[in-house]
Amino acid sequence: MTYNGILTPKTAEQMHLLMKVALGEEKADLTIVNAKVVNVYTGEILPDLGVAIKDKWIAYVGENAGDTIGPHTEVIDAEDQTVIPGLIDGHTHIAWMFTAAEFLKYAMVGGTTTVVTESLEPYPVSGYEGVSDFLESLKDQPIKILATVPAMVSISPAARQMPPDVLAKLLSRDDVLGLGESYWQAVLQEPTQLLPRFEQALACGKTLEGHSAGARDKKLAAYVSTGISSCHEPINAAQVLERLRAGLHIMVREGSIRRDLAEIAKIKNTGIDLRRLILSTDGVEPRDLVEKGYMEYVLGKAIEHGFDPVAAVQMATLNVAEHFGIDGLVGGIAPGRYADLVVIPDVRTIEARVVVSNGKIVARNGKQLVAPRRHDFTEQSLNSVRLPRQMRASDFIIDTVDDSDRVNLRLINMVTDLVTSELETQWPVIGGQIGPDIDQDVIKIAAIDRTHNPGRKYVGLIKGLGLKSGAMACSAAWDTSDIVVVGSNDEDMAAAVNRIHALQGGAVVSENGEILAELPMPIFGIMSDLPIESIVRRLKEIKTVVSNLGVPYPDPLLTLITLTGAAIPYLRICEEGLVNLKDGKTVELVVS
Amino acid sequence: MTYNGILTPKTAEQMHLLMKVALGEEKADLTIVNAKVVNVYTGEILPDLGVAIKDKWIAYVGENAGDTIGPHTEVIDAEDQTVIPGLIDGHTHIAWMFTAAEFLKYAMVGGTTTVVTESLEPYPVSGYEGVSDFLESLKDQPIKILATVPAMVSISPAARQMPPDVLAKLLSRDDVLGLGESYWQAVLQEPTQLLPRFEQALACGKTLEGHSAGARDKKLAAYVSTGISSCHEPINAAQVLERLRAGLHIMVREGSIRRDLAEIAKIKNTGIDLRRLILSTDGVEPRDLVEKGYMEYVLGKAIEHGFDPVAAVQMATLNVAEHFGIDGLVGGIAPGRYADLVVIPDVRTIEARVVVSNGKIVARNGKQLVAPRRHDFTEQSLNSVRLPRQMRASDFIIDTVDDSDRVNLRLINMVTDLVTSELETQWPVIGGQIGPDIDQDVIKIAAIDRTHNPGRKYVGLIKGLGLKSGAMACSAAWDTSDIVVVGSNDEDMAAAVNRIHALQGGAVVSENGEILAELPMPIFGIMSDLPIESIVRRLKEIKTVVSNLGVPYPDPLLTLITLTGAAIPYLRICEEGLVNLKDGKTVELVVS
Repeated sequence: MTYNGILTPKTAEQMHLLMKVALGEEKADLTIVNAKVVNVYTGEILPDLGVAIKDKWIAYVGENAGDTIGPHTEVIDAEDQTVIPGLIDGHTHIAWMFTAAEFLKYAMVGGTTTVVTESLEPYPVSGYEGVSDFLESLKDQPIKILATVPAMVSISPAARQMPPDVLAKLLSRDDVLGLGESYWQAVLQEPTQLLPRFEQALACGKTLEGHSAGARDKKLAAYVSTGISSCHEPINAAQVLERLRAGLHIMVREGSIRRDLAEIAKIKNTGIDLRRLILSTDGVEPRDLVEKGYMEYVLGKAIEHGFDPVAAVQMATLNVAEHFGIDGLVGGIAPGRYADLVVIPDVRTIEARVVVSNGKIVARNGKQLVAPRRHDFTEQSLNSVRLPRQMRASDFIIDTVDDSDRVNLRLINMVTDLVTSELETQWPVIGGQIGPDIDQDVIKIAAIDRTHNPGRKYVGLIKGLGLKSGAMACSAAWDTSDIVVVGSNDEDMAAAVNRIHALQGGAVVSENGEILAELPMPIFGIMSDLPIESIVRRLKEIKTVVSNLGVPYPDPLLTLITLTGAAIPYLRICEEGLVNLKDGKTVELVVS
Repeated sequence: MTYNGILTPKTAEQMHLLMKVALGEEKADLTIVNAKVVNVYTGEILPDLGVAIKDKWIAYVGENAGDTIGPHTEVIDAEDQTVIPGLIDGHTHIAWMFTAAEFLKYAMVGGTTTVVTESLEPYPVSGYEGVSDFLESLKDQPIKILATVPAMVSISPAARQMPPDVLAKLLSRDDVLGLGESYWQAVLQEPTQLLPRFEQALACGKTLEGHSAGARDKKLAAYVSTGISSCHEPINAAQVLERLRAGLHIMVREGSIRRDLAEIAKIKNTGIDLRRLILSTDGVEPRDLVEKGYMEYVLGKAIEHGFDPVAAVQMATLNVAEHFGIDGLVGGIAPGRYADLVVIPDVRTIEARVVVSNGKIVARNGKQLVAPRRHDFTEQSLNSVRLPRQMRASDFIIDTVDDSDRVNLRLINMVTDLVTSELETQWPVIGGQIGPDIDQDVIKIAAIDRTHNPGRKYVGLIKGLGLKSGAMACSAAWDTSDIVVVGSNDEDMAAAVNRIHALQGGAVVSENGEILAELPMPIFGIMSDLPIESIVRRLKEIKTVVSNLGVPYPDPLLTLITLTGAAIPYLRICEEGLVNLKDGKTVELVVS
């Protein structure tokens, strides 16, 4: 079991204090009485119990909690109400356009008290210092935010260099529980690159978080044999079952990337042991967070989709704590655990009336009572768009090298709003150049490195985005340090990128030289410093504007920024070229 | 999660090799085909599966294991048979008169492949060096033997000194998973002594193994609030339920100390989640080990008492691995785990046909195929009876200090064969001395320190042992470095102790100056170097002889050596005096 600066093991004095409170010799700081308590260890709902809290911990759970109440003890009468452990999200991406402080405003009032977040986003941009700065922003918050560190699976060679000593520094951190999601294809394709990182992580006693989308049988076994111990990628009950059987902890996603609960809930009909099934979000975008909520929404959905409510609570608490080996400290209501708990009306109604985190009441009836800490990011983190000069329209011209009047092109072809395929097609060369064709829904796409080799770029073509006019660009391009931009014309592409340069990061939509909508993201170029409500409003504006320009997808910005991602099939782009994820090879626009 | 020298995390090269075998690119060393596999993660029995093994690990589990078979692959056809994970005993005392090599002859052929043993026995006698030597004897064996280190709860002040740096050295060992059983009374009575040790263990990421016999409600909560995470002491379903609810992993004992399965099996009627219920032995004495077997016997009993067979297998594998945070390496049949598994006829018939440990076939049809390693103990370990001189009968005389002809005595009173009470009674003083009274079944008892203050002793009286003639002594006195001796007369007591001195440890029965039976135990004075079959024979002789002398108990030697123990209520003896475990206070024979 690994402990950390945030999940600190108790000192002898703290243990002694808890003992005295349990014995009634000292009084509790906070005691909840008359509660129905969901016991995640036995899977029971136990009536008429009290929970006595001292400092950050639970000292006593039982029928005699009255004896822990003194003149200075705050008492919560939970008559007719139910208490569940604070919810845990075992896999998320906090760096989703907002800062941790803004995220917490919504996450903690809903009853989430522990979050395990990936920290990979700042790495391609700002390296170790960026990840450190990001991790610092997660510390000393009203709830516990733990992290997994970047496995650095990227299609951009510049973004996947992590020297072993840098990884060692990150793995030695107390707030780091594991090595973050390592896409299975990369592990099978480049074992000599990734397996030494796995060895480092396991030797430090940290977990290896998996990402086995689409793998099965032999390939899945090969991947799991390395020591990978979780996966959050299965999308149906059969995939979950195969992975549970392989000994993985499975995180079911109900977040902004995917909503798999309805489909995966069918697994309850198999009658199998669900101890390794976990609820998670894999990230929630600002609007979902504000409008739907966080883990309390996911838990509610799980119950709605037919999971036994107590089993569902286990899936959002104990099961995930067990996966990370922190179940002695969080994930259940028992003596010695952190006092993280939520008072709800009843086990089928996941609405937080009172949220207790680290022994303090942090929220009541949806109202935040403790302010999250705001972090001052470093100058380096705030200046991550280092393009050497303004972009010009001519930067996006695609010249051909020979003098044929037709070439075979390799297009990125949109299959869904996120999945792409590789499409080969004959294409005219006009004036020695390859251009878009709006009628065929083919426009230009470029990925421009902004930190490693600033200005280095690759320009290709993409089919099926629907954009008929203008350009859209964003510096929060997944897994890389790139600005990704798509456009119907070179001028608008240059204007959008230049505006991002001026903002030091952001999402921008331009048309005819005018900026139609924008969201500044000056932190690493991937996170906004605005209040989350403003972020939501600006994202809505972007969506409206881009929809008006013809893009039919539910979240056009997400569609854009995932085009550099290393996890979603198949043809992607980075500053080096197009990359086919089937084999990880970089390929050119013109098929030779 | 903590790994260790015995449960070694894999290197990158080893991971790569397993990947290749899973993919069919390299061939397996050993492949089991056509098996029904008990999947402990999902609680299923899956038909027609193969398990491919390379080096020490499982590379693949599935329907296509045939692809891992090459010309040099050993193949086991498990047609019509079932494969379960190698069994794990999560709490035992290997130092039970025999050496690890002798223990393994029987333990491993039955299908046990991982053992977590207490290492407390050598500590009172030989300190850190003794524990180290003992732990060395457990290494490099055909199965994995891991340890918990002494919490040093002893009624003897000499035996409970463990400087923090010594504990730190032990806790830093890779083969140490936790701090051993810490009796709850001692923790509540002497928090300032024990809690700093707890703090040390938790800070090292090790578990705190509990021992909460008889504790409930507030006292149990106080104990658990320190971070204790297991208990192997509950004796009925209600006690188990209270402890599971408190978040503990509960080890159900079916060994030579207690057999609680029949009673505790009633918990299955509650329908609660059994994920934290564990089967264990708490130690098996030589005859039980030879005649009944080891964990396969316990598992069989659990099924016999009505536990669902798959749930019972989980209780002897995954559940215990999860408790210690080693479930990524042992406790299930999945890629990347150690290849520890047992072929049995079917899940209701726990009879090991083939035992695979660390990827090697170590036993087949009850026949051991690999010899355990024999350890050469150090000279210090082999010379632990350091009495300064021969004992004389006069050493056992109890003089009174005043001249009354009657005194109030405090007798150890046998309640069961193990439990004692404190009995106050008027007693005649004859010639200034206090003597035994065979008619009232009151005889002398003495505890003599043999290492710390060699020769320091305390002589008291005990009622209810039944011994009518002669004396019985043993150097394996629980939790202390004492020789404990009871006798109807001082001469036989001296003779028995002197014989132990000559043997450098052992159990001896004497009568009229003659040695009637004996078992030499020259290793720390607590373990015999004889083959286990000889140990069994000699113990039977001792039992026969002592029964003939009048002792009615099933295991008179166990009754004797537990009289110095700190765990079994209530009145005990050590070289300092009588100790009442209710308050841990040392008291005198004569009530003042």
